[in-house]
Order: sequence, then structure tokens, then C-alpha cells
Amino acid sequence: MTRNDCAQRDSTDRVAPLRQLFALDQVDRDGVIYLDGNSLGVLPKAAIDRTQHVLREEWGRGLIRSWNTAGWITLAQRIGDKIATLVGANPGELIVTDSTSINVFKALNAARLLTDRRQILSERSNFPTDLYIADTFARAHGMELVLVDDHDVAAHVDAQTAIVLVTHVNYRTGRMHDMAALTKQVHDAGAVMIWDLAHSAGAVPVDLNGADADFAVGCGYKFLNGGPGAPAFIWAHTRHLARMDRDEWRQPLSGWLGHASPFAFASSYEPAAGIQRFICGTPPVLSMAALECGIDSVLAADEYGGMAALREKSIALTDLFIELVESRVVDHGFTLASPRDPQQRGSQVSLAHHADGYAIMQALIAHGVIGDFRAPDILRFGFTPLYTRFVDVWDAVDRLADIMATGAWRDPAFAVRQAVT
Amino acid sequence: MTRNDCAQRDSTDRVAPLRQLFALDQVDRDGVIYLDGNSLGVLPKAAIDRTQHVLREEWGRGLIRSWNTAGWITLAQRIGDKIATLVGANPGELIVTDSTSINVFKALNAARLLTDRRQILSERSNFPTDLYIADTFARAHGMELVLVDDHDVAAHVDAQTAIVLVTHVNYRTGRMHDMAALTKQVHDAGAVMIWDLAHSAGAVPVDLNGADADFAVGCGYKFLNGGPGAPAFIWAHTRHLARMDRDEWRQPLSGWLGHASPFAFASSYEPAAGIQRFICGTPPVLSMAALECGIDSVLAADEYGGMAALREKSIALTDLFIELVESRVVDHGFTLASPRDPQQRGSQVSLAHHADGYAIMQALIAHGVIGDFRAPDILRFGFTPLYTRFVDVWDAVDRLADIMATGAWRDPAFAVRQAVT
Repeated sequence: MTRNDCAQRDSTDRVAPLRQLFALDQVDRDGVIYLDGNSLGVLPKAAIDRTQHVLREEWGRGLIRSWNTAGWITLAQRIGDKIATLVGANPGELIVTDSTSINVFKALNAARLLTDRRQILSERSNFPTDLYIADTFARAHGMELVLVDDHDVAAHVDAQTAIVLVTHVNYRTGRMHDMAALTKQVHDAGAVMIWDLAHSAGAVPVDLNGADADFAVGCGYKFLNGGPGAPAFIWAHTRHLARMDRDEWRQPLSGWLGHASPFAFASSYEPAAGIQRFICGTPPVLSMAALECGIDSVLAADEYGGMAALREKSIALTDLFIELVESRVVDHGFTLASPRDPQQRGSQVSLAHHADGYAIMQALIAHGVIGDFRAPDILRFGFTPLYTRFVDVWDAVDRLADIMATGAWRDPAFAVRQAVT
Repeated sequence: MTRNDCAQRDSTDRVAPLRQLFALDQVDRDGVIYLDGNSLGVLPKAAIDRTQHVLREEWGRGLIRSWNTAGWITLAQRIGDKIATLVGANPGELIVTDSTSINVFKALNAARLLTDRRQILSERSNFPTDLYIADTFARAHGMELVLVDDHDVAAHVDAQTAIVLVTHVNYRTGRMHDMAALTKQVHDAGAVMIWDLAHSAGAVPVDLNGADADFAVGCGYKFLNGGPGAPAFIWAHTRHLARMDRDEWRQPLSGWLGHASPFAFASSYEPAAGIQRFICGTPPVLSMAALECGIDSVLAADEYGGMAALREKSIALTDLFIELVESRVVDHGFTLASPRDPQQRGSQVSLAHHADGYAIMQALIAHGVIGDFRAPDILRFGFTPLYTRFVDVWDAVDRLADIMATGAWRDPAFAVRQAVT
């Protein structure tokens, strides 16, 4: 395997044209290889003009009229319907609103109505915000949050389990659950399944309805390229939406845009039908507009084989990275923290490095390879097939090999902690 | 009073130069007079370049590094400290996060810890989202939401009252409460005071600490000019923040950015000190950046007499509007729905028109005067002293007089309801 082999693979990569949708010219000129799209996706070029248009024409000129004329009032549904196509949901089942954390809170509240049991089961290594929300929720409702190792969730689902809250692709290791199998097991035990798709939507094929899941939440700014802090989304199975309509169930964040007739300005709350009731307040239109551009950049893959083609390339990229690390960066204390089997892996690869992981990642970033570090020992590398090339993988490992061979990472400056790590 | 008199007043208006901060050139060319800044403030010119910079340089080029290098991680505090100067709060007491609705939910949860009583008191005419959130909250906690007329709040505060939740300036009528007096009365009765500053922040002088209030929330996209759906804010008095620190109280939306050490990625939640714990998930950076430009446009008034000068002009504008309506649009069925005493009025004037208010407002908008309508009979006109001129008031009433005199509003097209009214 040589760099030329990688360039050859890029030349025959059928999704390669999609890279042109992203504003990477300056990044390329900077000599930066960006392997952190699992934390913040790259800027889609379309978002530049779109946000300018939203500012100058829609906000600046259209002003308040744009709620009607520019369709601001239906952004949450329109963008939700687009995300739905990426996660195996139907139009009208998924909506863009608030943050992932807040949507976890809403999903837990909805799930609680379906069960009299008291145990919420999750993974010790789940993304902390899910655990923080679930812990506070459990305390507030006399429930108990039980945390187990990520391999052990299935083994702990039993007649005590009320709700299982799991992130489909683990943020630290990239380990991916079998969504259909775990959902079935959870249902067989009489429990409710909530999936967090933060590291799945736009990254791996997801089929929420095929898996018969109950609720799902997800993030807009990772593999959906929606921009820093982009709004998140929430999905509920139609069987639950239908029941809510009958019960007039209201979620606790019963804000005005989740009302059946928000512009009637009625003094009493009546929940909107279906998923709409999971909206709370007014959406941040600028951030919503950028998010739509990010999702459009994923949907653009439909012309090139769609999510199946993206997944195929993602596996090829991550396999290549593992292969190159194991062949070129030996004897430097790295171990593979992600599953070797690509079927159990999302679109990232994590390496563990005892004691020196932080400084090594800082050195890598200083040398133009941007991944990130998660304490105590994880170096994360995300591979977004929309814009990551095979030569990027080669060059990234090349620089890592160089940093380890020269000991460049031992510069004390690389041990200084940043605010955001 | 003639149009020339109004032009004369503009020529001696000391805050007039502030209008140049706003992107109104095209709006002026369109012949539009915008009197709806109480619903959505005008685009500050600075937001155009700022959002371009955030997109191209911070997101596009800086990518994930911008959480540190561009200060994204401290935006919520930095912008919060700026808003604090407008509402009589100290640095570190106020934070930008989520929507007003969600912040009402957080404030109610915090207030509940301070009382064993069960009655939440609010106004029937309060903005509906406050009522919807409070109603659901009350049901969830075995409390009761009691609604009274806006003149009667003070009369209903008694030994049963747990929490008073009131919007300082009423969204329908513009009626403004005496914040210090009502807060004192609420405290004397042993209850907790939550103020919604949606129509106050940036519009009228507010002194939360001077009034000894308990909690406050507010909106970024009205008189703060933060853009459609801009993030909201929440404030708590330091006596409550200090107690929360002692108690390790967690708010129910205990997301990761409200954690004491979010980037430690600890599996257990520990609330951040002070107001920081009211943050939940990752902030929408683009919308936050635009919001900061909006707030800066208000703070720019400091060179021209600050909020006192803005308030003086606001009263002059609203007094002029009332005077012109009453002298030029007589015998057409309008009644003043706002207080005549400017000391009891925010920066808007509402007219009531029985039966035909909706069509008249639609006709006005079609003729280039943008206010809005609130069922069943309210026409709202907002006067933002940063960019509204005295001649705008003249011209607006002139067009209203024309529409009424000619009967132009009777065109059946104006009776067709829009999605957002």
C-alpha cells in the first residue's frame, strides 16, 4: 500500500464528486486534514449563500413577513422530513427542534407513559449528556438509572427494565449496536427503546421503522454538517404518535409552537397532532437554514449510490486507517479502541494511548491532522465519506508516524490543556 | 402637527444616528415602514459580516478548533453579560440559552424549591407560551395555575401564592407593570417572582436587582434584534445562585454544558456553579453570533444617552402615534388598547378594532406599514427607537387614515388568513 494506491482509490471513488459541495479550499491550502466530522461536520458551500439570503432577503427585507413568505414556520417539519429519509422514518414522524439533550428529556417523558416499571438502562460510556438528563429524570420520577458496560446492555434487559436509552454508535469507541436486534430484545422484555442517533444520522444506514424502535433523537452538527450547535431532532413511532393524539398527552416542554393552533394565542394548551407537539419555542432560523444545507449535502449522495455508497466508502476509509496505523505506527503504545469488524463500527476509529494520548493528539493537530481526544486515553478520528479522501487517510497516518518517530509530541506545549479538548 | 414637524423632530433626535446600524436601505426603497420590532427586530448591518465570518473563518476554516480559538464555548456567558447591562443584572448572573419557553420551565423548577405553596399566579393575557409551560408544570407537580386579569395580579397575591409569573410588558396591550412595586408585594406575601422580559429587554429600562426580583427570562429576537428565533436568556438573583451552589441543586434539563466540567466527560452529573447550570446542550453558534450583533446595536446607544435616551424617544414616538391616530383616524371604530399614561406603557401601541381588525392590518401591510394582528381585535404597532423615525409615525398614520377613508381595507383579499398572523 502506497500513497499512490490511495490516490488511485480516490480516482475511482464514485462518491468523490461530493467533496466539491464543501468549503475545503482554504482548509486544503492550510494543509489541514480534518478527521473530526464526528464532532463538527465541515461547512457546506451552499450554507454561505443560504445564510446570506436568510439574513439579507428573508430577515433584512422580508422581516416578520418571512414567517409566511420564506416558510420559516414550516422549517422544522421540512428539515425533519429530509432527515427522516436518512434514518428510515416516514414524513411527518420526525421534527427538528431544540438540542439533543432536551430531546432526550422529551423522549424519556414520552417513554415513561408506556411503562409502570422504574429502571432506565443505559451504558456507562454513553455520551454524558444522555446520562445527565436520564439521571435527573430518574430522580424526579422515582426511577433508577442503571449503567452497564456497552457490551452488556442486552444481558441486562429484563422484567425490571422500563426504558433502554442507548446511543447507536458510541461516541468514544465508534462501536455500533445492532439496532433491530437490541430493539427486539428490549421489546421482548416489555421495555421501551430510545435510540440516540448523534453519531449515526448521515454516517451509517439507519432504519428506525424497520427496527420497530420507539423513540429516537439525534444531532444536527456531526455527520449532518449543520454547523456548530445546529438544532437537533426527535422521532417517535407512529403507534406512539397515534396514542398521544388520542390521549391528548402533552410533553412537559409544552411551548407555544407545539400547540394545535399556535397563532390562535389561546390561553389554554392543546397539543398539536403527531410529532409537532415535541416542538417547544421559536426555532433559531439562521441555524436551521445552515442545518438544511448540511442535510442537503448528505442527500446529494443519492445521485452517487446514496447512503449505501457512503457506508461502503466509510468502511473502506476506516479499514484503511486501521491497516495503516497497525503497519506504520507500531511499537508506540497504540491499541485499537474501535471494533475491528466494520459491521460493528460507525464512521470513526478510536485509538487508545495510555498516558500520552492528549499530548499526541495536540501534536497531531499542530501538524495539521485534526482529530480529538477523550479522557483518559482515547484519540478519535472521524471519517466522513462525503469529503474525506483515501489520500487524507494516508497523509494523516504519515504525519502520526512522523510525530511518533521524531518524538515531536513530547514538546511540553502539547500537554497544556485547552478549554475544549 | 405636520409631517415637517416630524421631520424637524428627527433632525434634532439625539439617537437618530443609531438607525445607520440597521440594514434598512432596501426596506426604505420598498417604501416599507416597519412597526413590528416588538415581534422581530430589524437586521443589524453588523450581523451580515459577522455571520459570514463565523461561517467562512470560524466554522469553515477553524472547524472544531473554534470552540477555543473563536470563543464559541464562552458565547453564552459573554452575550449574557451584555444583556445583563440592559436589565440591571451583574456579570455572571445572566446567561443566553435555549428558548424563552424552556427558560420559563427552568425558572419555575428553580422557584418551586423556594416554596411549599401550590399556587402559580399569572395573567390570562400573558403570552400563551408562559401559560402553557406553567399549566403543564403545575399539573406535573400538583400545583394550580391561577389566571387573573392583568390589572388584578397584585390584588390576588396572598398567602396561597407560591410563584407569580408575569410578563413585564404585556404582548397584546403593551401595558407595563411596576416591577419594583409588584415584586415587593409578591415578596411581602411570601411568594417568588418570575419576570418575563420578552417585551422589555432593550425596549424599556429594567432593573432586576434594583427590584430585588427572583428570576427572569427574556427573548433575543424582539427589541434585542437578534434575528428570527434567536436564543433566549435566563437570570437568577445571586441569593438563589448562592443557595443552589450550596445545595448542588440541578435543574431538570441537566445537559452537558451545564456540568461543572463538561469536557471531563464524567458519567455522573455535577452542576456548574451559578447561572451556568441553566445551560443545557450545545448553543446554536450562528444564531448566537447574530444575537450578539443585535445586542451590540442596543449597547451602541450608550454613546447617545443610553437606555434613558431610548426610552425618552420611545415615549415620544408612542405618544405621537396615539395623538395622530386620535386626530386623523376618527370615526372608524378604533379604540386605544394600550395605557395612555406612557409610564405604564412599553414601546408599543395597540389599537382595538371590533370585527375588522384583521383585514385592516392586512391592508396596512399591503400598503407598506407592517404591524401585526392578535385575535380577536388587536392591531399592534411596535416603535423601536433605535431605528423608527418620527416621520415613520406620521407616514404610518397617514396610510392608515387613507386606508380607512377610501375603504381600501374592504378588499376581500385582506380577509384571507395567513399561516402566521
